[in-house]
Amino acid sequence: MDASDRLSLDNIRASLIRQEDSIIFGLIERAQYKMNDAVYAPGATEVPCYQPDGTQASMLEFMLRESEQMGGRIRRYTSPDEHAFFPESLPTLAIAPMAYPNPLAPAAETININARIMDMYVNNLLPALCRPGDDFNWGSAGLADVQCLQNISRRIHYGKFVAESKFQARPEEFTQLIEAQDAEGLMALLTYKAVEDRVVRRVTNKAATYGRDISEDLPSEFPAGLVDRNAEESLKVAPKKIGELYEKWIMPMTKDVQVEYLLRRLDHVER
Amino acid sequence: MDASDRLSLDNIRASLIRQEDSIIFGLIERAQYKMNDAVYAPGATEVPCYQPDGTQASMLEFMLRESEQMGGRIRRYTSPDEHAFFPESLPTLAIAPMAYPNPLAPAAETININARIMDMYVNNLLPALCRPGDDFNWGSAGLADVQCLQNISRRIHYGKFVAESKFQARPEEFTQLIEAQDAEGLMALLTYKAVEDRVVRRVTNKAATYGRDISEDLPSEFPAGLVDRNAEESLKVAPKKIGELYEKWIMPMTKDVQVEYLLRRLDHVER
Repeated sequence: MDASDRLSLDNIRASLIRQEDSIIFGLIERAQYKMNDAVYAPGATEVPCYQPDGTQASMLEFMLRESEQMGGRIRRYTSPDEHAFFPESLPTLAIAPMAYPNPLAPAAETININARIMDMYVNNLLPALCRPGDDFNWGSAGLADVQCLQNISRRIHYGKFVAESKFQARPEEFTQLIEAQDAEGLMALLTYKAVEDRVVRRVTNKAATYGRDISEDLPSEFPAGLVDRNAEESLKVAPKKIGELYEKWIMPMTKDVQVEYLLRRLDHVER
Repeated sequence: MDASDRLSLDNIRASLIRQEDSIIFGLIERAQYKMNDAVYAPGATEVPCYQPDGTQASMLEFMLRESEQMGGRIRRYTSPDEHAFFPESLPTLAIAPMAYPNPLAPAAETININARIMDMYVNNLLPALCRPGDDFNWGSAGLADVQCLQNISRRIHYGKFVAESKFQARPEEFTQLIEAQDAEGLMALLTYKAVEDRVVRRVTNKAATYGRDISEDLPSEFPAGLVDRNAEESLKVAPKKIGELYEKWIMPMTKDVQVEYLLRRLDHVER
């Protein structure tokens, strides 16, 4: 795949939709466990992981850091669509880097909103998604979190590719707003309410489909149930809730990345 | 959950069906990447991971070992339903072990068929699941593999709970076969063809559901397509193939674990 392929709207759309599948299924996987607050409270478990100030990290931070140590050694974070949550701690590469096609402007490398994503995920999304309380499935919950966070981060930062593609389609309009550093104008030019509504409907449909208990007799039972997308019985998570969480917490951040990228799109950055 | 809950047939059935969801979705996730042989060939990548004899391990082995180092430190493998692929290399615990309810006979701890599972997964299941060739998504493919392997291993070794539950329901019949060390007789007593056929149908239905491209207009489009479970268009993987792989490779091993467990069910093992 060369750099131009990567920016075709068809390819971007296909990638975003495929990433959405993984995110929705991942959230349903996480929702099978209770909230399990101990996973997120620094010091609540005796994980072998400390902050620079000597305080103990949370179990989630430990698991995420370990995952990044492993992935980092085999060059996960040299890809322009991967972003570490702890970029300052990435290990040296154990295998030679790969030359990824990178159609983004140099400033892309300076944009990483994972700290905001982590805060949103733990403090807003999870408490709305999960039943409260503790079922002691801390490891399973944490593993599901690591996967959700990495998938959500990838999706949100994919906004860089979306923005570059949109910029190339209408360079004059965008250049004018960028030169004026008009964040609101950029946001307005990027926003299509009808498209966003369609995403929410699609996400809700995916949640209704993935979250249903599927029996051996499905073809006769399934279609009738599907018509009511708000039905909550025999569903792992209410589809409407997943759609709302996506709309309220994940989608705005994808647009924030687009605006941040465009604001710096014309910067001269030393490579 | 106390030990007796864990053996109720309803709870076992619910857990098996939930695990199935994760396995099927995981296989579909893996199938989006090509085979990528370099992930499985020892020495094909320069991973920092060596066998005791000095030869280099595969990228998959490196990723799986790293995952087990992380999980092992936070007591993943002290749970009776988790089994390490490299049990000889598990790290010491970084947090205190938890007292899991364990209704299994002591011999359960000696049964671990992960070496066979790994061989089956890499040499039989994956080549049938994935398109041949290389798309250089080695890290993504390997991550999907780690998750599939851990989910499949959990499902297969859950046979210990299934077997214990069946033993307790018919202790005289099983004891007779165990005392005679009659593996074939045990296998016959455990086998219900009608139930197995139902599992394959259910797995195929799940693959048809999870693998479909879901649009924002789903309720009107979806039901018609579902009726033909063999349709391959607009599906990520042919559902029938997933059903066949499950039947041919995963289900027989779940029964092997049951028989192995029962053969040693009455052994006196020092705890």
